[in-house]
Amino acid sequence: MGVTAAVAGASGYGGGELLRLLLGHPGIEIGDLAANTSAGAAVTDVHPHLPDLEGRVFVDTEALAQTSADIVFLALPHGQSAAVAATLPAGVRVVDLGADHRLHDPQAWQRAYGGEHAGTWTYGMPELPGAREEIRVSNRVAAPGCYPTAVSLALVPLVAAGAVDPSDLVVVAASGTSGAGRSAKTNLLGSEVMGDLTAYKVGSHQHRPEIVQTLSRYAGSPVSMSFTPVLAPMPRGILATCTARPSAEIVSGDDLGTGLGADAETITGILRAFYDGEPFVRVLPAGRWPRTSSTLGSNCVHLQATVDAEAGRVVVVAAIDNLTKGAAGQAVQCANLMLGQPETTGLSAQGVAP
Amino acid sequence: MGVTAAVAGASGYGGGELLRLLLGHPGIEIGDLAANTSAGAAVTDVHPHLPDLEGRVFVDTEALAQTSADIVFLALPHGQSAAVAATLPAGVRVVDLGADHRLHDPQAWQRAYGGEHAGTWTYGMPELPGAREEIRVSNRVAAPGCYPTAVSLALVPLVAAGAVDPSDLVVVAASGTSGAGRSAKTNLLGSEVMGDLTAYKVGSHQHRPEIVQTLSRYAGSPVSMSFTPVLAPMPRGILATCTARPSAEIVSGDDLGTGLGADAETITGILRAFYDGEPFVRVLPAGRWPRTSSTLGSNCVHLQATVDAEAGRVVVVAAIDNLTKGAAGQAVQCANLMLGQPETTGLSAQGVAP
Amino acid sequence: MGVTAAVAGASGYGGGELLRLLLGHPGIEIGDLAANTSAGAAVTDVHPHLPDLEGRVFVDTEALAQTSADIVFLALPHGQSAAVAATLPAGVRVVDLGADHRLHDPQAWQRAYGGEHAGTWTYGMPELPGAREEIRVSNRVAAPGCYPTAVSLALVPLVAAGAVDPSDLVVVAASGTSGAGRSAKTNLLGSEVMGDLTAYKVGSHQHRPEIVQTLSRYAGSPVSMSFTPVLAPMPRGILATCTARPSAEIVSGDDLGTGLGADAETITGILRAFYDGEPFVRVLPAGRWPRTSSTLGSNCVHLQATVDAEAGRVVVVAAIDNLTKGAAGQAVQCANLMLGQPETTGLSAQGVAP
Amino acid sequence: MGVTAAVAGASGYGGGELLRLLLGHPGIEIGDLAANTSAGAAVTDVHPHLPDLEGRVFVDTEALAQTSADIVFLALPHGQSAAVAATLPAGVRVVDLGADHRLHDPQAWQRAYGGEHAGTWTYGMPELPGAREEIRVSNRVAAPGCYPTAVSLALVPLVAAGAVDPSDLVVVAASGTSGAGRSAKTNLLGSEVMGDLTAYKVGSHQHRPEIVQTLSRYAGSPVSMSFTPVLAPMPRGILATCTARPSAEIVSGDDLGTGLGADAETITGILRAFYDGEPFVRVLPAGRWPRTSSTLGSNCVHLQATVDAEAGRVVVVAAIDNLTKGAAGQAVQCANLMLGQPETTGLSAQGVAP
Repeated sequence: MGVTAAVAGASGYGGGELLRLLLGHPGIEIGDLAANTSAGAAVTDVHPHLPDLEGRVFVDTEALAQTSADIVFLALPHGQSAAVAATLPAGVRVVDLGADHRLHDPQAWQRAYGGEHAGTWTYGMPELPGAREEIRVSNRVAAPGCYPTAVSLALVPLVAAGAVDPSDLVVVAASGTSGAGRSAKTNLLGSEVMGDLTAYKVGSHQHRPEIVQTLSRYAGSPVSMSFTPVLAPMPRGILATCTARPSAEIVSGDDLGTGLGADAETITGILRAFYDGEPFVRVLPAGRWPRTSSTLGSNCVHLQATVDAEAGRVVVVAAIDNLTKGAAGQAVQCANLMLGQPETTGLSAQGVAP
Repeated sequence: MGVTAAVAGASGYGGGELLRLLLGHPGIEIGDLAANTSAGAAVTDVHPHLPDLEGRVFVDTEALAQTSADIVFLALPHGQSAAVAATLPAGVRVVDLGADHRLHDPQAWQRAYGGEHAGTWTYGMPELPGAREEIRVSNRVAAPGCYPTAVSLALVPLVAAGAVDPSDLVVVAASGTSGAGRSAKTNLLGSEVMGDLTAYKVGSHQHRPEIVQTLSRYAGSPVSMSFTPVLAPMPRGILATCTARPSAEIVSGDDLGTGLGADAETITGILRAFYDGEPFVRVLPAGRWPRTSSTLGSNCVHLQATVDAEAGRVVVVAAIDNLTKGAAGQAVQCANLMLGQPETTGLSAQGVAP
Repeated sequence: MGVTAAVAGASGYGGGELLRLLLGHPGIEIGDLAANTSAGAAVTDVHPHLPDLEGRVFVDTEALAQTSADIVFLALPHGQSAAVAATLPAGVRVVDLGADHRLHDPQAWQRAYGGEHAGTWTYGMPELPGAREEIRVSNRVAAPGCYPTAVSLALVPLVAAGAVDPSDLVVVAASGTSGAGRSAKTNLLGSEVMGDLTAYKVGSHQHRPEIVQTLSRYAGSPVSMSFTPVLAPMPRGILATCTARPSAEIVSGDDLGTGLGADAETITGILRAFYDGEPFVRVLPAGRWPRTSSTLGSNCVHLQATVDAEAGRVVVVAAIDNLTKGAAGQAVQCANLMLGQPETTGLSAQGVAP
Repeated sequence: MGVTAAVAGASGYGGGELLRLLLGHPGIEIGDLAANTSAGAAVTDVHPHLPDLEGRVFVDTEALAQTSADIVFLALPHGQSAAVAATLPAGVRVVDLGADHRLHDPQAWQRAYGGEHAGTWTYGMPELPGAREEIRVSNRVAAPGCYPTAVSLALVPLVAAGAVDPSDLVVVAASGTSGAGRSAKTNLLGSEVMGDLTAYKVGSHQHRPEIVQTLSRYAGSPVSMSFTPVLAPMPRGILATCTARPSAEIVSGDDLGTGLGADAETITGILRAFYDGEPFVRVLPAGRWPRTSSTLGSNCVHLQATVDAEAGRVVVVAAIDNLTKGAAGQAVQCANLMLGQPETTGLSAQGVAP
């Protein structure tokens, strides 16, 4: 083949998932694997689930400045990728799994992450209108992360269709613990998280501005969204429950007698039409709700929606694997587009269950 | 002493928790333990965690018609307690852990559960205004279950204070699997639930009318609430994320410059004042969010709130143990009041963690 | 291409894992999918993690009598596959994931499973000496299940080398809950298994005769093995801890001064030599012990061994995914050999972690 | 009452469990709570499950030198308690939950833990012959920890009775993650441990010498024991599977025709006689095996045994809560004896399940 990929931050959970996917990718060879504190360590000491990397050793992140790879994946903590990107050889393609190059508004960046804004790259969510073509011709792509992927894919079709009122979205999204990364913190110990659900960063999570940016773009007007993240006792998976009031237009044209102007079929019809032909988005059959376990290790998003007529709210639920479609899988999907390979190469829509 | 309690439905999870609490209760003896399909079985075959009941055997539910107990707990599936209650000796005190006697509106009952409405008993949530006194003088009490307890305790103080707009409440509440009971169903197998989050009965859960009834009573007007239950990979615990728009009155009197007329301290101040002196409700210190693991085996509700100024929403989060404060613990708390014993006897505010 | 596979018992956990693997297998098409109680149901209602089977419906098991498939996988409960196998078209290749055709001794079969012994097929564990060649030319293969795979791969090299005394093997093996199958039983509910470890069928598990048969064959004499299975709170994975006393020969030839005649390197050296070149067996680097999480969804066995000089015992630990190498993956590996396809097609050595 | 307890290491998991038990203990007041890195922190920030300690703050460990407490619990990491004990006021009673004062042999201590041996205190396992009386009159007690408690209580009766051959004991014991303590380590992250079983410190765990010391004492001769610890995906609980060959005496006197001279009833009979009247040891009815979930939060040990005639091994399985009977509960049980209070005060035999 000839395409080689290097990875920065290869020792983290996102990096590990990327390596798993690349090992099964027939069109990409694995090149330099860089890490910070794990530099010099055996890759399989950190990722014992990847025995085919036995013998490989993490290099220093700085070594990537001389990489001969065709594409570099940056799987670094938020705020670290811009500096590494600046050192990479000119002309190399780059996919950033971090947040550094996702926000347009420097002030939004600063409020959410602190530090200087690094600029904005092509937003790597191929299912959004026009995005696929843009990604194909980009050599710098910022792949969105876990919460933004789940929530945006659930709500963009509805705000884009004017089916819901964008001024009062309410989202509660629960994530498995790998979303919090691999650094050793007491509150992430197994003893603490098993048997536990807890809300965190309520109303202040750093991913909200990115979700609002995406939704506002397709709504054509600024959206307002309450966002409560919840830490759930499982290693992977995001379940996002997204609610919105049906829009006035839909209500006034109520042909269906719900009092809302919309019923579940109207809403799922909008979702189905929006994602028609998408390889990694499935609007489930009526009556079946998304399960995070169905997405484990897969690049698939499962969606379902209903209209709660009594409460006057549309409810859309999305499930993804936060490390695959929410990180590494999406990055590979973008890379496939950038490299001119079939978009689904090396990715699966099937989950590992039970 | 001298008080003896009988239990119907003693073989279920709620029944088992009740037995655990009664074994540690210095003022109540355990009398007849009745079950349906488990009648005749050794209690410790079903509840091996209760070795002090070694030698005890479940009797038929019908046997309770001749019980000499002073108080009977009904821990039966919804729709079964009314029939059993009708057979009990006259004058015996009864606490129903099921839903049969909670709703005032027969039509709401029929829509939610089907079958005929059995009537309405004193609502057994001592923390609600006036409830404690009413429970003390009742000999028939309907103790509310898991979701109603968590959501009502989170939102009643705010709707009662007029601090939030009751017309568009949005609640997403995740429950451990014991909330679904002990009957063998494929979708509740460990293989299915571990690693899985899934929404269910979205917009149609049978507990919504009960929550709406309680909130409407204290709001002084009908409330509207979107309610999405989520099944979480843990045996016990409920985490309810409850959001509401701040009320117009609060916004117009905005002394605090948030644009909302309320900040987190205002909201937690309302909660603290409402629950002042309550033995089993704790509004957490600022910055600490409720964790279900902190409530395991305890009768305590943990609450925290904030105002999401950007989204224009108040967010209140409640954590409880669904089998304790959400079922058996609340029932014992009510029984203590009915029996003239100290309200906290046999109950603990401490959880078992980690 | 042209190879089509049918599956009996396609609605179970082993069946589901088989379908997941076959969906990713470039050389096998999925044909008839048969089930018993789920016949007529949508495949994705039972296996929502396999969205690419949307639209497929389970047929009755009897329909397989007319299957045009080239190979049939029997993923049925123990004792059911012989009857189905008898109805299959002549000449079709069959891989049985059940126990029906694994035991040579009809009496051992009857003691373990009851009912009549159905006969003995080629034993489908390619890593055993001579087995690969035998499988290649067989059209009836009995693929060993979870415990036999883990324990046999751990101990066969040592008993075959005469390195351990086969008369007093002691094995404790813990399995995830999917090993108990998908039928709804109270003791397998999530509420029961999460947070719980329990031993079961101590000294009487039906898989012991199969393990003893395999070990005895390679030991060249009857082995005696204490076998304690443990149910562990995770959906998948087996961790088998296998201990044996070093053999007298090894002790008398003690060049290493351990008093045992063997140290960890001697033992791991035997394992490494035995499995040299095997695609799905990894003897881990010194100091790293197998983790079940590293094998999730992979067909790989991870092994590590040491000599406990103080206790006079060799300890070998094996980890596998019970549904993959312990069931469906092994069956696909056998099928690849039977079909003349590369042995690793459609299988991965990488696990999905964390 | 008047008895006050201080705790060193009160911020760890063992310390937290101790506080939970002391809060429910009618005869002990909670005095100084000391911690190292958490000194100065709010107790409920570290232990949010103990709301009744709201307002309490951890003091420095050095402050205990001036404590006015009647009894001090040392819940410190192994190797740290001797130094703290040396600073305590003369005459104060001390219960050490760490290993520092458990081993008689200074060399065994050094091999297992390093550093100098601090001496040997009364061994705090009241169920051992003579131990209860010794503890009552001691003011320095070393309460044994998790693995030693589970394994010793399983095997002491059998080695003491000469029913098993002490020269080749094989134990595999799995522990929940809280056994590894509360310090932040990557391998203990929830993402790593959920879904994972792994063996560790195989043949070299630091608790083996203590178990061997106890078993040898009651066997009357040195025992040899292979010991493999396993880390299990649950916060609490130990399941110890202990096997031994029946002794020659028992075999030669085989009245029961098993070929072993012993059957399950013989073995469980020995256990039942040994623990007759013990409040916290339960030999389960025939056919029921111990479950760790049944012991959660309880001070109870559940035991069951059988004879595997085919393998020639006795198998005894023990389940405990590692933080309660395996640490804090046992310490409170010892303290009750030392203080002349009823032995079971503040302790429960009931578990919290499911």
